[in-house]
Amino acid sequence: MPFAYRPMRSLIFVDCVREEYRHRLLHWLYAMHVPDSISKFGPYVQKYAFYNALPVPPEGERFGTRRMQMTEHYWLLNEMTPEMHVNAFTERMPVEVLRWQGMIPDDGTDLSKAANMDGDTHRASGGGEMPPFVFAHVPINWEEDLKGAGRTLDDGPNYRWQFVVQWPEPEAGERWFRETLAPYFQARPEVNRFLSSKIYQDVVGCKFHRLVELWFDGPEEWYAAAVEGTKTLDKPAWAQQERFPFLKSNFNIVGMFLPDMAASDNLTQYRGYITMR
Amino acid sequence: MPFAYRPMRSLIFVDCVREEYRHRLLHWLYAMHVPDSISKFGPYVQKYAFYNALPVPPEGERFGTRRMQMTEHYWLLNEMTPEMHVNAFTERMPVEVLRWQGMIPDDGTDLSKAANMDGDTHRASGGGEMPPFVFAHVPINWEEDLKGAGRTLDDGPNYRWQFVVQWPEPEAGERWFRETLAPYFQARPEVNRFLSSKIYQDVVGCKFHRLVELWFDGPEEWYAAAVEGTKTLDKPAWAQQERFPFLKSNFNIVGMFLPDMAASDNLTQYRGYITMR
Amino acid sequence: MPFAYRPMRSLIFVDCVREEYRHRLLHWLYAMHVPDSISKFGPYVQKYAFYNALPVPPEGERFGTRRMQMTEHYWLLNEMTPEMHVNAFTERMPVEVLRWQGMIPDDGTDLSKAANMDGDTHRASGGGEMPPFVFAHVPINWEEDLKGAGRTLDDGPNYRWQFVVQWPEPEAGERWFRETLAPYFQARPEVNRFLSSKIYQDVVGCKFHRLVELWFDGPEEWYAAAVEGTKTLDKPAWAQQERFPFLKSNFNIVGMFLPDMAASDNLTQYRGYITMR
Amino acid sequence: MPFAYRPMRSLIFVDCVREEYRHRLLHWLYAMHVPDSISKFGPYVQKYAFYNALPVPPEGERFGTRRMQMTEHYWLLNEMTPEMHVNAFTERMPVEVLRWQGMIPDDGTDLSKAANMDGDTHRASGGGEMPPFVFAHVPINWEEDLKGAGRTLDDGPNYRWQFVVQWPEPEAGERWFRETLAPYFQARPEVNRFLSSKIYQDVVGCKFHRLVELWFDGPEEWYAAAVEGTKTLDKPAWAQQERFPFLKSNFNIVGMFLPDMAASDNLTQYRGYITMR
Amino acid sequence: MPFAYRPMRSLIFVDCVREEYRHRLLHWLYAMHVPDSISKFGPYVQKYAFYNALPVPPEGERFGTRRMQMTEHYWLLNEMTPEMHVNAFTERMPVEVLRWQGMIPDDGTDLSKAANMDGDTHRASGGGEMPPFVFAHVPINWEEDLKGAGRTLDDGPNYRWQFVVQWPEPEAGERWFRETLAPYFQARPEVNRFLSSKIYQDVVGCKFHRLVELWFDGPEEWYAAAVEGTKTLDKPAWAQQERFPFLKSNFNIVGMFLPDMAASDNLTQYRGYITMR
Amino acid sequence: MPFAYRPMRSLIFVDCVREEYRHRLLHWLYAMHVPDSISKFGPYVQKYAFYNALPVPPEGERFGTRRMQMTEHYWLLNEMTPEMHVNAFTERMPVEVLRWQGMIPDDGTDLSKAANMDGDTHRASGGGEMPPFVFAHVPINWEEDLKGAGRTLDDGPNYRWQFVVQWPEPEAGERWFRETLAPYFQARPEVNRFLSSKIYQDVVGCKFHRLVELWFDGPEEWYAAAVEGTKTLDKPAWAQQERFPFLKSNFNIVGMFLPDMAASDNLTQYRGYITMR
Repeated sequence: MPFAYRPMRSLIFVDCVREEYRHRLLHWLYAMHVPDSISKFGPYVQKYAFYNALPVPPEGERFGTRRMQMTEHYWLLNEMTPEMHVNAFTERMPVEVLRWQGMIPDDGTDLSKAANMDGDTHRASGGGEMPPFVFAHVPINWEEDLKGAGRTLDDGPNYRWQFVVQWPEPEAGERWFRETLAPYFQARPEVNRFLSSKIYQDVVGCKFHRLVELWFDGPEEWYAAAVEGTKTLDKPAWAQQERFPFLKSNFNIVGMFLPDMAASDNLTQYRGYITMR
Repeated sequence: MPFAYRPMRSLIFVDCVREEYRHRLLHWLYAMHVPDSISKFGPYVQKYAFYNALPVPPEGERFGTRRMQMTEHYWLLNEMTPEMHVNAFTERMPVEVLRWQGMIPDDGTDLSKAANMDGDTHRASGGGEMPPFVFAHVPINWEEDLKGAGRTLDDGPNYRWQFVVQWPEPEAGERWFRETLAPYFQARPEVNRFLSSKIYQDVVGCKFHRLVELWFDGPEEWYAAAVEGTKTLDKPAWAQQERFPFLKSNFNIVGMFLPDMAASDNLTQYRGYITMR
Repeated sequence: MPFAYRPMRSLIFVDCVREEYRHRLLHWLYAMHVPDSISKFGPYVQKYAFYNALPVPPEGERFGTRRMQMTEHYWLLNEMTPEMHVNAFTERMPVEVLRWQGMIPDDGTDLSKAANMDGDTHRASGGGEMPPFVFAHVPINWEEDLKGAGRTLDDGPNYRWQFVVQWPEPEAGERWFRETLAPYFQARPEVNRFLSSKIYQDVVGCKFHRLVELWFDGPEEWYAAAVEGTKTLDKPAWAQQERFPFLKSNFNIVGMFLPDMAASDNLTQYRGYITMR
Repeated sequence: MPFAYRPMRSLIFVDCVREEYRHRLLHWLYAMHVPDSISKFGPYVQKYAFYNALPVPPEGERFGTRRMQMTEHYWLLNEMTPEMHVNAFTERMPVEVLRWQGMIPDDGTDLSKAANMDGDTHRASGGGEMPPFVFAHVPINWEEDLKGAGRTLDDGPNYRWQFVVQWPEPEAGERWFRETLAPYFQARPEVNRFLSSKIYQDVVGCKFHRLVELWFDGPEEWYAAAVEGTKTLDKPAWAQQERFPFLKSNFNIVGMFLPDMAASDNLTQYRGYITMR
Repeated sequence: MPFAYRPMRSLIFVDCVREEYRHRLLHWLYAMHVPDSISKFGPYVQKYAFYNALPVPPEGERFGTRRMQMTEHYWLLNEMTPEMHVNAFTERMPVEVLRWQGMIPDDGTDLSKAANMDGDTHRASGGGEMPPFVFAHVPINWEEDLKGAGRTLDDGPNYRWQFVVQWPEPEAGERWFRETLAPYFQARPEVNRFLSSKIYQDVVGCKFHRLVELWFDGPEEWYAAAVEGTKTLDKPAWAQQERFPFLKSNFNIVGMFLPDMAASDNLTQYRGYITMR
Repeated sequence: MPFAYRPMRSLIFVDCVREEYRHRLLHWLYAMHVPDSISKFGPYVQKYAFYNALPVPPEGERFGTRRMQMTEHYWLLNEMTPEMHVNAFTERMPVEVLRWQGMIPDDGTDLSKAANMDGDTHRASGGGEMPPFVFAHVPINWEEDLKGAGRTLDDGPNYRWQFVVQWPEPEAGERWFRETLAPYFQARPEVNRFLSSKIYQDVVGCKFHRLVELWFDGPEEWYAAAVEGTKTLDKPAWAQQERFPFLKSNFNIVGMFLPDMAASDNLTQYRGYITMR
């Protein structure tokens, strides 16, 4: 019986909660996780790329800004179906990696004896008191082109603000996005491009509703539009913080600032973990 | 809802109407268009290759022979569906590129201020007074094996004549192809291989009906079979020129002479635009 | 009309019946067959890898152990459908290659004048008096996880025993596998991992029923579990030989001993046939 | 007449003086500078890699810490000799790039009309009031192994502090390095590895004397050893600031914090400037 | 004893004397010669690239213009020394290949039984009645920068005219180049870039004296400067034809029109001989 | 001061003394040693390839035949000079790896606590009671072409017998090679190609004198020439065994049977350690 043909894109926003962990996370990602992943999903993933997070801009903490990288996949099938459950190898995922990413407390507990996690458990981590692991599946192309169609690479490098939102009240949230937020950003001169898609909540049970991306010339333009300008926005009834984005940072809004290019397009560029001499 | 799974191949026959433009077109193709394209369709294109046109043989002009390259894609989905409409970046396509390809008049009009075109507009250009842009989608494998099955690479390098036809009268044209032309070429000793497929007219609205490919040892054998030998063919009722191919050159028949190998298999071989020192 | 979307994996167990042929087979595989294959199926194969057979362990001959390589493909569509029948080029497959692989007698008959075979004929060779060519299509992921889930690459390199079985009595065979053999290997301490899938018999008419893979630390552990330990197993009614595996070697059981890594992941690693100086 | 055979390594410490510029610098580096560079020196450079700067640790500003990347080359010949002077193409180096790197004032002057610089002028920029462009050539292997020989990749990911020093008084500086600083760091438990080489001052006229590299488990260990612990060090006669490193930050000491792996090993990994969709 | 360290660049101007041969030459070059060459000189060649000849412009025949490709190597040592004489494999060079390139008469003699040539014999072919095989070694960088220093890739794609000259009277020829020809082209507005180097005559016994390269916007500008404008040049005493270039075409002047980019940078881009389907 | 320019080739003959170790050695080589090595010598090694040993033919044990692989490097400089001594990282070389290769006794001693060895110590292992580690440096091209010059890849795949000899009496050994052995093999019809070079004994202190390579159609032809035919050879005065090769197996003669192609050309083909699913 044929599989459902469902090409999708997914995004993971990886945090790094302490600088003590950044180079360790980098090592785990490139020395262990990339080869484990290619070994596993090479036959049904078309693109597997890492994009380095740009530094958090002033007041960026309020926006659930994560600090390591965005991990992107383009899938030829849904890896979460029962047919895809059995794998010869399990990915190497020491629990410590979750601590580095902020999914479990950075409380000094010794994790060196903890068992390896499997990847699906890892990607379902966080939540409750701790911020959620964000693994959001979206359509292969953007759904909504809200501003700036026609922009080319020659129009200049972009400072891309990408985030997912989980509305406390989904219907009200969506209405506010469409009636208030989208028009606001469409009208801001600093916004060069504005795109959005709904998140497929049925794939991995992702609780976020919407992925949004806004492009600016740089963090100063972002600040003008997203921090300064939004002071005029009325606080919605469902607000979780006083000011825009009105959502609980790192729980109901999670995002990242990214450049246009991938740090590593793993399927075409990975050549093993090679070190400086 | 799952996408339709429709793997397809497509062919674009790119002309170069003046030698003054060849190296410019080459630069645009490799320095700008290849990276723009890989960025855009990398996640759903399985092969993206350029094949260099061999020089036009004697009398080849009558056959709608184009002079730059054949651009080939193998698609995992139909890029023309609404779900695929929104793209973060638009490809860089200066209008001038269409002039180089003969889709708009080479009349000296200053195009340097013209806006960038988007790719779909570009690929729908030509027509009317000007020759059409040819973007033909066909089944992933050839449909009809008319002569020479079993040929291997060890049987020698091939001079491949590839063309698309738009019959002035589709039914009569198809009948003539099947009853007159195919038997003619099957009987010619110079023809080593003969393949054909119908064109999917529903994908991008391509008006051509059929793709044909004939392999010869070289242009001299092609001339014997396609120019000399065809003098015996009766002119069909729908003929647009006196002699074979009986179709209006570069409008109802468009084609190219090609070798077996790709000039660049872009997804596996492209490594940036690197120049001679 | 859309194609059926049926991503699959396939395995071919290639034998080398005489050392006089090993380097010739190697040359044919890498100098001719890999480029022929990539040219042909590049647009719809996601992974195409060769895994070198480890030497046959003591008593391994009884288990239908082949001695050259396992050839693995991951397909995006079923190449055996009528839509995929016509190919521009036929793969170069001298009949001699079948002799090297043991599909036709190694009887000194001069094959140098024999015509090239097409690939499908080649892959349907063997059978009758001669061992069958094994071309088994299976689900893209393993179906049954019988032991050792959670194993990672850090648990050590694996000695993988992979085999296909064709039960003389399919129902009885499957029952014996489930009630006798699987519990036996699950209980053996030498078995680190145990996986199995049913073979898709509808793709190329493969007559084998099941693919099984068992991982050991090395051939000594394999010997303990598969030769020594199985002496306690009762001979089933359908047995074709006295001892385990109870199946006719190289006819009803065909397999190989393999390491974890591919000798060549052709789509990403092949760079032409380059020789030692 | 044969060339002098002088394989060398060189390091460039690239700063980013304002976050408004980081993604622009990234774009210039990968979209323009890498292909320009490979085109130019591909035939005589063996390795050309970028290593991303880790964020500046607390008090790191005092140490001349730069914030973008370390650019590393391994040369097969000295590009500064007269025989290497003429180049077909000049690298694209808008003056603005120097502003982003802090080599000219970030004072708002419009540089958009400024002529392209050639690469050698670019790499000789800075100095005087502005910090110097650091382009340091060193022996292909490290000269001095001061601590931690035998460390392997399995000993854990490293937080590498790399810096060059220009002593105000070269003889006294070298003596202080050897008699005071080296023993200090050798004795610190946080230091896992300690390496140093003299800089070749004859290649490009680099004024720095010495390259030093110290490896720690992370920035907290660096802080303990380099900030806290050094409070006990006596201020040398030639000191330019009160505390260690006693050198004028970003002028007499310039450095960076780096992980083990390259962000991009350009000669093997670059595949054009491909963007996020 | 150490080798002489003599990094060099070499150029081969490959002709195609009849269109019947172009796709055969292409097949031999890419299916056989590239892998043979990489196997042989991979360990001491840093760059090995093919650049496709642009079509011969009007009157280009008078200038010794060849029609296939320029083959470029960058060598780390002189392959012609006795130490480099013995090779495990000899390159596959059917004599017929020389006919396709115009080094031996295209007279219909059956060459199919002729022995394979070795590469050095091949590369010393031609001469006497037939045009010489041109294999010119030059310094790794250009020696003389005669016009247009500072040109970057952003100044536009280039139509590069590259040729070697063998002066009938070397001293007079060089004087004429310096006093008459160089000033002429320096003064022509169509010339964007002008470079030249002396040829190393000691490497393979190349009889040509000088390599020259001139860049234009296109063939029309070349025609204005090299054909129209040169009518004013006085015929030198040693002239071999009435008009500029005053040298015997294809014997004393041999050249090619080339774009900036390589058709194939073989060491980094070659991935085997893969065909169109 | 410039380095000595001394391009060299080196060969290492790696044994595998027990099948229990083959897949472990394979894992160490590809998962750890290749990336360690590329990290270390990438900037001065031009080729780094592994060639898989073909199975030992009948009586091959007497000839010091090793069973894993030949590791080949082409060096741009002598890594053994003092300038090359200090390395940032040491290669991961568990002592156990030497046991797998037969350089230390396979006696069951627990080596799991033994310290990592550095690479130079590893490559100087063996000797005394145990067979020596063979690391032989030779000229970049073969020195002596004793038979079969002109052979091309089209003459058929080769069964290459490669071995190094350490003469018990160097002068007598060389004389015997030249006067007896070389003429013998030159006269044997089974020998298709015959090459030899002296070993550079000054690089790593290699005690072997000469590298020899003989090509046959296969092991049966080797047996006829090297085992059967050599019965007629008189035993030399210095003989260490009764029959040819008259040298102490695995001590004074060490060799391997190899195909033409590399199993992995690591610098161009390595893409990380990717496993079967």
